Order: sequence, then structure tokens, then C-alpha cells
Amino acid sequence: MRPDGRRPDQIRVPQITPGFIRYAEGSVLWRAGDSVVLCNASFDDKTAPFLRGSGEGWVTAEYAMLPRATDTRGDRRPSGRSQEIQRLIGRALRAAVRRDRMGERSIIVDCDVLQADGSTRTASVSGGWVALVLALARLHEQGVMPEWPLAAQVAAVAVGLVGGEARADLDYGEDFDCDVDLNLVYTAGGRLVEIQGTAEGRPFTRGELEAVLEVGWVGAQQVLAAQREVVAPRLDELGLSFPLDR
Amino acid sequence: MRPDGRRPDQIRVPQITPGFIRYAEGSVLWRAGDSVVLCNASFDDKTAPFLRGSGEGWVTAEYAMLPRATDTRGDRRPSGRSQEIQRLIGRALRAAVRRDRMGERSIIVDCDVLQADGSTRTASVSGGWVALVLALARLHEQGVMPEWPLAAQVAAVAVGLVGGEARADLDYGEDFDCDVDLNLVYTAGGRLVEIQGTAEGRPFTRGELEAVLEVGWVGAQQVLAAQREVVAPRLDELGLSFPLDR
Amino acid sequence: MRPDGRRPDQIRVPQITPGFIRYAEGSVLWRAGDSVVLCNASFDDKTAPFLRGSGEGWVTAEYAMLPRATDTRGDRRPSGRSQEIQRLIGRALRAAVRRDRMGERSIIVDCDVLQADGSTRTASVSGGWVALVLALARLHEQGVMPEWPLAAQVAAVAVGLVGGEARADLDYGEDFDCDVDLNLVYTAGGRLVEIQGTAEGRPFTRGELEAVLEVGWVGAQQVLAAQREVVAPRLDELGLSFPLDR
Amino acid sequence: MRPDGRRPDQIRVPQITPGFIRYAEGSVLWRAGDSVVLCNASFDDKTAPFLRGSGEGWVTAEYAMLPRATDTRGDRRPSGRSQEIQRLIGRALRAAVRRDRMGERSIIVDCDVLQADGSTRTASVSGGWVALVLALARLHEQGVMPEWPLAAQVAAVAVGLVGGEARADLDYGEDFDCDVDLNLVYTAGGRLVEIQGTAEGRPFTRGELEAVLEVGWVGAQQVLAAQREVVAPRLDELGLSFPLDR
Amino acid sequence: MRPDGRRPDQIRVPQITPGFIRYAEGSVLWRAGDSVVLCNASFDDKTAPFLRGSGEGWVTAEYAMLPRATDTRGDRRPSGRSQEIQRLIGRALRAAVRRDRMGERSIIVDCDVLQADGSTRTASVSGGWVALVLALARLHEQGVMPEWPLAAQVAAVAVGLVGGEARADLDYGEDFDCDVDLNLVYTAGGRLVEIQGTAEGRPFTRGELEAVLEVGWVGAQQVLAAQREVVAPRLDELGLSFPLDR
Amino acid sequence: MRPDGRRPDQIRVPQITPGFIRYAEGSVLWRAGDSVVLCNASFDDKTAPFLRGSGEGWVTAEYAMLPRATDTRGDRRPSGRSQEIQRLIGRALRAAVRRDRMGERSIIVDCDVLQADGSTRTASVSGGWVALVLALARLHEQGVMPEWPLAAQVAAVAVGLVGGEARADLDYGEDFDCDVDLNLVYTAGGRLVEIQGTAEGRPFTRGELEAVLEVGWVGAQQVLAAQREVVAPRLDELGLSFPLDR
Repeated sequence: MRPDGRRPDQIRVPQITPGFIRYAEGSVLWRAGDSVVLCNASFDDKTAPFLRGSGEGWVTAEYAMLPRATDTRGDRRPSGRSQEIQRLIGRALRAAVRRDRMGERSIIVDCDVLQADGSTRTASVSGGWVALVLALARLHEQGVMPEWPLAAQVAAVAVGLVGGEARADLDYGEDFDCDVDLNLVYTAGGRLVEIQGTAEGRPFTRGELEAVLEVGWVGAQQVLAAQREVVAPRLDELGLSFPLDR
Repeated sequence: MRPDGRRPDQIRVPQITPGFIRYAEGSVLWRAGDSVVLCNASFDDKTAPFLRGSGEGWVTAEYAMLPRATDTRGDRRPSGRSQEIQRLIGRALRAAVRRDRMGERSIIVDCDVLQADGSTRTASVSGGWVALVLALARLHEQGVMPEWPLAAQVAAVAVGLVGGEARADLDYGEDFDCDVDLNLVYTAGGRLVEIQGTAEGRPFTRGELEAVLEVGWVGAQQVLAAQREVVAPRLDELGLSFPLDR
Repeated sequence: MRPDGRRPDQIRVPQITPGFIRYAEGSVLWRAGDSVVLCNASFDDKTAPFLRGSGEGWVTAEYAMLPRATDTRGDRRPSGRSQEIQRLIGRALRAAVRRDRMGERSIIVDCDVLQADGSTRTASVSGGWVALVLALARLHEQGVMPEWPLAAQVAAVAVGLVGGEARADLDYGEDFDCDVDLNLVYTAGGRLVEIQGTAEGRPFTRGELEAVLEVGWVGAQQVLAAQREVVAPRLDELGLSFPLDR
Repeated sequence: MRPDGRRPDQIRVPQITPGFIRYAEGSVLWRAGDSVVLCNASFDDKTAPFLRGSGEGWVTAEYAMLPRATDTRGDRRPSGRSQEIQRLIGRALRAAVRRDRMGERSIIVDCDVLQADGSTRTASVSGGWVALVLALARLHEQGVMPEWPLAAQVAAVAVGLVGGEARADLDYGEDFDCDVDLNLVYTAGGRLVEIQGTAEGRPFTRGELEAVLEVGWVGAQQVLAAQREVVAPRLDELGLSFPLDR
Repeated sequence: MRPDGRRPDQIRVPQITPGFIRYAEGSVLWRAGDSVVLCNASFDDKTAPFLRGSGEGWVTAEYAMLPRATDTRGDRRPSGRSQEIQRLIGRALRAAVRRDRMGERSIIVDCDVLQADGSTRTASVSGGWVALVLALARLHEQGVMPEWPLAAQVAAVAVGLVGGEARADLDYGEDFDCDVDLNLVYTAGGRLVEIQGTAEGRPFTRGELEAVLEVGWVGAQQVLAAQREVVAPRLDELGLSFPLDR
Repeated sequence: MRPDGRRPDQIRVPQITPGFIRYAEGSVLWRAGDSVVLCNASFDDKTAPFLRGSGEGWVTAEYAMLPRATDTRGDRRPSGRSQEIQRLIGRALRAAVRRDRMGERSIIVDCDVLQADGSTRTASVSGGWVALVLALARLHEQGVMPEWPLAAQVAAVAVGLVGGEARADLDYGEDFDCDVDLNLVYTAGGRLVEIQGTAEGRPFTRGELEAVLEVGWVGAQQVLAAQREVVAPRLDELGLSFPLDR
């Protein structure tokens, strides 16, 4: 039995507030339990320096925690942990677009954790995807990005092994007790975009990895559904189809 | 007539959400129109280095904007503007406490602007004061700060001269047009804690300063009332009196 | 009675050495009592990045203390205090020029405190104005800045409340004892360009602010006269009139 | 057929030069094809700050590339990529020790890439483990670390999907063409310590992940054997058994 | 014939203003032609970290140029050139003291170039020595440094080869034309403390080095005499003998 | 008698491995006793910023130690010592080329110390020269640098005074005991490119300097011969003559 009564494969259903910030091309407040992440997608009229002349666009991410997002106050300097996480988010979101259709333009997705109660990096990927799509929709509507570049729906879920049991979307208390912690990024078609798992305390077997992937996919589907509820009406409005298959 | 129909001395009434973040000793989401500032007050068991051995405590502040708080995305590096503003906030909040009653302890108040539509530094002072008092109340209740150190209620208001007229609590559009921009920090007793005004475009006369101070005090009283509504019940609960006179 | 026998509204008369550094377009050593500030104005052939294409110029300032300008040695890293002060100097000096007449060019005024005995930020504004005008004069003479952009004479004075009495141009010892410390930047016409006052110890009343402004203007007139003595002959030489009225 | 004629599950057999640097407690030059990494393990008499008083030790890693390790010269500033990689190395090596047996001491493992031809992060983990064990052996021999803390043999292998085929230990040319790139860290007992895989170009299926894991474990066994050849005689010398089972 | 009519072995006689800054334990304004360096020696109650427990003291230096010390404005960030120069100054000044007599205390000598017209690093060494001795004298007088640690008089001179002729104390114009530039630090006894010479343009022969050393020693004696004039009366006052022989 | 049995003027004969890194235009592993330096010369298609439009090229150097190159682990941040040394290397290598024949191109020589047992800065100059020439040869061969810019052979040797005796190429143990430490950079023609000597402990006489120069030149000739053995065949191959006379 989990502390808050959830089943092992049950996530904290995210409350998604689109348009939280009015300036950003795409903005979402993502709240899952007590984890609260503000995801803002901003447009930039240039692609990444190493892509100049290629005709391709770029998607990147920044991740940071407010100093008091956690139980004790941290400082504002970017940490190695932030660096690692924002690289993961960037890779995951790039998998959602066809960069050759973006033109030489960029989207930067800022994921700022206002409150952290576990699984903030997966919340950032999932919320970042919604912010990204809302931004692409606005830019497409405005004619700034004439080709529609969205290629995949992407959602992330954290799965931990606690006392041998695979559990989805750990909160901070469960995270503290778990031996193994995997972050899984899925497409709506059930493929993996990223898998990142660590077992500092106790290495895990192939069998345990299987169990984690089972629970992860069940959890991811719940996230995918929550995203779809917010994003689908907006795409409908623009006559764009929802990416389902990849 | 102001763009949003306000009278010259009318502020945007702040919506104050106490306890927005559950970890911080004191936390407030301060929303005035489209300006949204998250103020979190954190306890530290040490005083400032230059006060070691003095028996006195310290209150300091940090101010930052999320990259997309504004119309165009900024970067995360601390700017000179942030430095200047956080020093102002720190001075204003220190005026609210008797540091000799804090013991050798600190409160650091983080003011993070989620969305900026003008007057964010005064919102940070006013919201920071609420966060500070909520933190002091919790620490007093827990016995960590046995003497009650609150000495004054402190609220800030920005006043601009737009076409010769003094207006309280400018939003971004009005701020852009104004010649002179003053930030006023008042106590509940009507005294000034800080006055900071700049006239890059057109120097101002003593008469104009008088008009600004008139409008400022009318505006400040509205802020003071909004703060009191949130803070007074909490102080009542602890049998502490509300500071009114200083 | 003040420690050095001055009347409350009497400043330390500045000794102004123009041309202290021969390379700078404008250079002044400003000595007021034991405060010594070297102000050098340098020309740059570009305007600020955000003004490119606007046809307008820019004036900015940097402020720093030599490590041993003070009683105990400080380090060379720029502090938050320096940032705050150099922003004040920059705003004050920009109020002295018509930037639309500068063309897309910049003046940067370096204010380096060699020795600090109170009121160094106001010394920097006042000395910086002299260095700025000397630089503009040289550039105008050389044909680099064909339109004469000087719009106002600008001088600053610090006023403190010590035991209820308003005193102009505090030295370090008086500054230490004062409750309230205001920095006032005036034009020759008696208008205010900047007012910045802080009362960490004891908030001040409107009446006290009035008294401060009285003393401030008396003090500022002494500074304005000292500046004029150095600058007027140079402007005469070039057939330029001295700005008096704004 | 792979460019250099290897079978899909065949790694480039590492040449391991122990004692390459004579000062370091443990030192190894790890050369696999044209990838050359110098791994030096250094002793520090203190544990990590957050473990003070816990009785536990710490193992951490730093990863850097010499500027000309790659085809074009890079600069020396630490990158986000380095941060991400050194965190991976640190986690993998901590899984190899029982930190409760180290006492409040640290080992820091520097992995400096002299030449990069693909798979340098896995080379760093595998070579770092050898350097770590050599350091622990020396410290144990000297009586500095009386309890023997080695808990597991840890080796890493990179596996890529190139045109649907899983291949172990990609060189730079193959890496460039691959869709999916996974880094796998195994214990000698076949358990996983870390799995980290990215599919920017094309998400991968559960079936493809299975194939990667198959090839990965075959490759890892070759690395484990190469490590053992270097380390086992040294442990024999000290009468310590080789960790096989975990 | 040199541009300013000096003989090849003739230096610009320094004007030395002791006590330029009143706070520093030792302070000197050193002016040689248009090169102006402010040298301030500050006391610190601790020795260098690596000397803790050794009973020995430390002397170190910092060197910086004000942004407009030169013909075009530089920025304030410390450069590699500053680093190199301040290390030279520190070594030279350490050769002047017996650190075993200082106790675990430090002197830090700040050399700030207000105006640069060649040979500022040698001016910094020579002026820094005067500031150092004045600081030691004050500390000895106050009983802070009971043993008198001064061991040697140290003076520096720059010598350049211009068109084959060795010339002492080059100004900026001559420095620009010279092939070889040597900085020589001498004791009063004619021994060398540091020699540092560079020939980017044209390597120099042993014979040329001899000529440089001849001219250097003639120039150094002029500097030594100028230093003595300022320092000897102060040492007399304290009954301390002037170091001549080393 | 020296600890390792060498005569006073005998250097540790360097083992020079050309082509150690395959990517760099010029690469050399320089090993002299236990000092090991990797010197890589990289081509850049631009000259230094201050030479744009001059038609001239640039040669510069970077010097760093791996954290565990020394007996105790250092950190990776560039130190003042590194700055000083890399400036020396850069000057020495620039003396080896005619920059007017390079065109507006640069060579940057990275000297990374893998293991430090004394005299690493002179090893960096001597090894850096070989890497530089190998790079120039490759670029000349490829037609990138059509004029052959090599002007001189440059080699460095460190000489110390140990107990009054001048000794070439000190190792770390001897370096620790020596009073005076000189670094000498010679051309093959016996001229000096750089002389840099420090006597923190005991100033040295002209006579001692003579002795140092005698020993230095004997040592330098051994280095020059070792360089020639590696470089001459390569220049022969390209029909280029070896620079001997300058």
C-alpha cells in the first residue's frame, strides 16, 4: 500500500493550467500532487549556432528550481543536476518535432519548479511537451511556422523500485526509500524516447527492468491522456490532427 | 482616464494567496493585475557574517525574474537591475523588524517574478512583508524565535508622473509612458522607509514630488489594508498584536 | 555642532582637478574632504545594443572602490552595492544630455574611489558630470559630435538625519550615526533628477523629508557652483552656453 | 558488416596500462581503439559535506576532454555534457563500494579524455572502476582504509542501433549514424547499475531494447574480463577476493 | 637621442608621495613621467593558508589598471597579463623580507595603475617596496610585528633594446618600438631578485644581455636612491637601520 | 652529485612521441624523466582579433595541469600560475615564426601536463615547438599555408642554483631545494628568446647568472638535438630546410 493510497501503477493525475503566463508563446502550470512546475515555451527567430545554413530548427530546454522549492533553501546557481535534467528534457522534446519543418527557428522551453515533491523532471518533460505544442500552434496560426512540425506526443513517467515493487510517479517520501529510480519517456505509440535509470543502492535485474517498463507504460498512458485533454481541442481549432501513432 | 479605468490614486487590488508553497516558513503568491510574484521567506539558523557575536539577526532578500516573465525572453543570469532591486527589498524588510529580538538568526525572502506587468519591485516589498510575518509567526509559535520581533507594517507603492498626473501602481503600458517613476515604502503610521525616484526623461519639481507623495500614501493605505486582511487573523491566533503605529 | 565644525547645510568644498588623466576624453579628480574619486569619461563609437538603429546615443557609468579605499581592505569583485550605485550614476548623467543629439555613440564614465570618507556616490555623480562635459566638449571640438548634446547641469548631494537634524554631505563618521540617508540629484534649475533615501533604523516623516530637501538644495547649490567654475571657462572657449534653466 | 570488421556484439578490446601516473593512488590509461582516457583515483581525507557525521564515505568523478581530443578544438570550460557524464560516472562507481566501510573518506576519480573516438563515457566508467580499485587496494595496504569496501565489479558498454542492428562499443563514425544510443553499466553478476538511452531521431520499441540489452551484456562481459586481468593479481597479492556475484 | 632627451641609462625620476591614502598601513603614489601607480600595503592578521602552523608570514600583491589608464578604455576583468605581473611583484617583495620574523601575518600590496605610460610593472615593484616598508614600520611601531622583518631594499627597472641600444625605463612610445624588453629587480647590494626578459621580435645575444644588465644597474641605483630618500627618515625615526648589503 | 646521477649540465633526455593524438594538426607527447606533457597544435582559420586586417597570423598557447599531475590533487580552475606560464609559452613560440608569412591564421598550442616532476614549463616550450612545426608542415603540405613561416628553432631549459651550483633541468626534488630558478628559451643560434628567473630565497649575483647561462646553453643544445631528430626528417620530406642560424 502506498502512503497516499495509490495503486503501484497509478500516477498523481496532473492538473494542467494552460496559458498560466500570458506572454509566453506556450505556457502551462503543471501540478501533480505537491510538485508544481511552470513550463513556458518561447520562440526565437534563430536556430542553434551549429545548424546555421542547414534549414533546420532547434528545440532546447532549461530547468531550474526556485530556491525554496524544496524543504531546505537552495541557492540560485545552476547545479550539475540541473544541467543533466535540462539536457534530458531537451532531447525528449526534440523527439516530438520534425526539425526540418521548423525552418531555422528555435523553441526554448523553460521548466521552473515552484515546488518539488518528487518526479519533477518527468513533470517537466510532460508539461514541457504541452507548452511546446501550444507554442507551435500559436506560431502556426500566426503564419510564423507555416509547416506543422509536430511529429509525436511525448510523455514521461518516473518509476521506482520500492522494496521490490515497481511504482509509478514517486513522491518525495517514496523516492527517498527507493533503490532504483528510472525515468521513462514514451511516445503515444508506446515507443521509448529516453530511458534513464540509476541504482546506486542495489543493482537491478532484467526481470525488474521488465516490471518497471510494464508499470511505466501504464503510468505513461495516464499522462498521455491528461495531455491530450488539454491539447486536442486546441489542435482541432486549427484543423490539425493529433499525433498518435509514432 | 487610465487605460484600465482606475482613478489616479487607485491601485490594482492585490490577490494574496498565503501558503502557496508548503515548505517555506512563510509563503505568499502576490498577484496585482498581471504582475505575479511568489514571495517565500526562509529561516536560517545563522545571522549575517558581519553580525556574528552581536546577538542580532538579519533579514535579506533576493529578487529574480523567470526568463519568460516578460514580453521577450530574458536570460537567467542575475542582472544589475536585480541587484539594485533586491537591495531595496532587503532594506525595506529590515525596517519592519527589531533585529535585536531575533537572536543570531536570519530570514531570507525570495521574490520570484512569475509574470511582470509593472510595479514588481513594490509588489515584492509588500508581498515579501507578508511572507516575512508569516515566517516569523511560525518560528515564534515553534519557539525558535521566542521574542516577537515584528516592529512595523511595511508596504510599497510605485507612483509615476504621466503627462503631469501622479498615478499609483502603474502597469507596464503606463510605466513605459511615464516621465518619473517613484517607489515609496511606507509604514502603517505613514512614515517613509524608502523613497527612490528617477527622472531620466524630465526632472521633477518639489511640487510634483508633493503630488506623488499624496497619491503614494493613498495607494499605500490600500496595500496596507490588503496585507492586514491576510496577516491579522494569523497574529490574532497567536495572541500577538498587529503593529500599527510606527 | 558637526565634528569638523561645518554648518548643517555646508558641504565639504570639492577640489576639482580637471585633466588628471591625460588619455581620457574627460577626466577629473574630485576630492571632498578625505573622499577622493577619479572620474574618467571615455568615448565609444557605438551606442548601447538596444538602441541600434534608433539614432540615439547612450551614457553609462561604472563605479568601483580600490581595495584599500576604506578602513579595512575589501576585495576587487564587483559587489551588489557597486551595481546599485553605478546604475544611479548612469541615470543621473543620462538626465544631463539629449541623447537624440549624440548620434549612435556612447560615453562611459568610470568613477573609481581612491579613498572613501562618506558620500562617494554623490561625489561620483557630481564629478562624473564634469568629466562627461569635458569629454563632450573635446568630442564636439574634434567634430566627432557635431550637435551639442548637453542639456542640463547635474549635481548630487547626500543629506542625513543625525539626531533629528538634516546635514549635508556626511563624512564617514557622521554617516555611521545617522538614521536616514538620502541622496539627491538636482539640476541647476532646482529640479530633482533622482531621490533615493533609506531609513533602516527609523522611518522618517513628511516633515523630515521637507527639512532634508531644504538642506539638500542649499548643499547642491554649492556643488553646482564648484562645477561651474571648472566647466564654464571650457564651454566659453568653445562658444557654448552653460545650461542653467532646466 | 561494421567498418572495422567487428561482429555486432564485439567491443574494441581495451588496452589497460595500470600505474600510468605514479602520484595517483590509482591510475589507469584506458585505450579502446582510438579512444584514450586517463583515469586517476585520488584519496581525500574527508567525506562529502552532506555526509559529515554519518560515518560514511563518498566516491565522485570528474570528466573532461582535452581541447584537442576531438576533430575540432573545443574550449576548456566545463560543458553541460561533461556535467551530465561525470554524474553518471560517479553514480556507477558508488554502486561498486560499500560506503559504510570507507569511513568518512572520499575517492575522486578524474577521467580525462586524451583522444575521443566514441564511447568515452563508458570507457571512463570501466577505466574509472579499475583506478578506483587500485586506489582502494593501496589505501587498504597502507592501513588507511582498514575495512575492505569493494562490493562489486562494474563495467560499462555503449550500444547503438544502426539501421535496426544493435552494435556494441560504437566508434565515432558509427555513433554518428546511429538512431539510438544506450549506455549500460553492469555488475559482474549481470545486474544493471545504470541504463541511459536516448532516441532523438527515432523512438525505439521494447523489442529493440531487448536486443540492445542482449548485445550489451555480451559486450560488458568482454570488458569485465579485461578489467579482471588487471585487477585480480593485485587483489590476490593483498589476499582479497574478487567480487563476482552481486 | 631619446624622445624626451634622456641618456640611455637615465630613468624618469620618480615623484613619491607617501601617505597618499590615509587608511592603508603603507601608501605611496608613485609617479614616473606619465606613469602613475598607487601602491597600498594592507595588513592581514593571518598568513597564507599553506603556511598555517609554520610560524611564517606572507607577502603578496595585486596589480590592476583602471579602465582608462591607457589610450583606449579596457574592461575591469582581471587579465592574464595582470596575473603574470602581480605574481612578479609578489615574488620581488617577498625577497625583501624575512618571513620567519613576520609571525603568521600577511601584507598584501595593491598596485593600481591610474595612468600607464610604460614600465608600470617595475614602478609597481619599486613603489610597492616603499609601501611595504611603511606598513612594516607602522606595524612594528604599534607592536604588532615585534621583530623587524625587513631584509633587503628592492627596486626594479625596465630596460629595452631599441635599435641595438639598451635604454632604461622606457616610456610607452619607446616600448612600442623596442625588440627586447627586460624587467630587472635588484637589491641595494646589486644582486638580482628577478630577471624577466622577452624577445618576441628578435632574439638577443649574451652580449646584448650584458649591455642590458649594465644599463639596468645604473638605472636601478637611481630608483634605490629615490626610495631611500622617502624611507630612510622613517626608519631613523624608529631607530631601525636601513638595509644596504644583501 | 645529483640525486639521479646526472652531471650539472645534463638534462633528462626527452622521449618525444610525435603524432600521439591523431586529430591535432601537430601532436607530441614529451616525456623527460617523470614529467609528461602532451602538446597539441591546432589550426584556426582566423587570426587574433587585434590583428584583423593586418595580414598577420598569431600563435598562442594554453597550459594546464591535469588535477592529479602532482603529488596532491589540485582543482581544474585555471590558476594565476597557469596564466603566467602560458603567456611565456606563447611568447616563446611566436619567436619561432614569421607571422607575416602565416596569413590571417592562428595556431593554438595546448600544453597539458599529465604528470609533473619539475621543469614542465620548459618541457611545454620545447615540446610545443615540435607540435607547432609539425602542424605548420601539415598545413604547408595541404596548401593551407603556402608560405613557409618557420623562422627559428626554439628550445627551453630550466636551470637552478642548488647550494651554489648551477644545474640544468631540475626535477621536483631538486627544484624544492633550489634558491634560484631560471627558465631560459634559446634559439638554435644560441640567442635568448626569453629569460625568466626568480630568487625568492636568496638574490643572485652577476657571476651566478653567468654560470647559469653557461649551463643553460649546454642543456639547451641537448634539447635542440632531440627536437631536431624528430623534426628534421619531416622537413626533409617536404623539401624544407631546417632553421639553424637565427
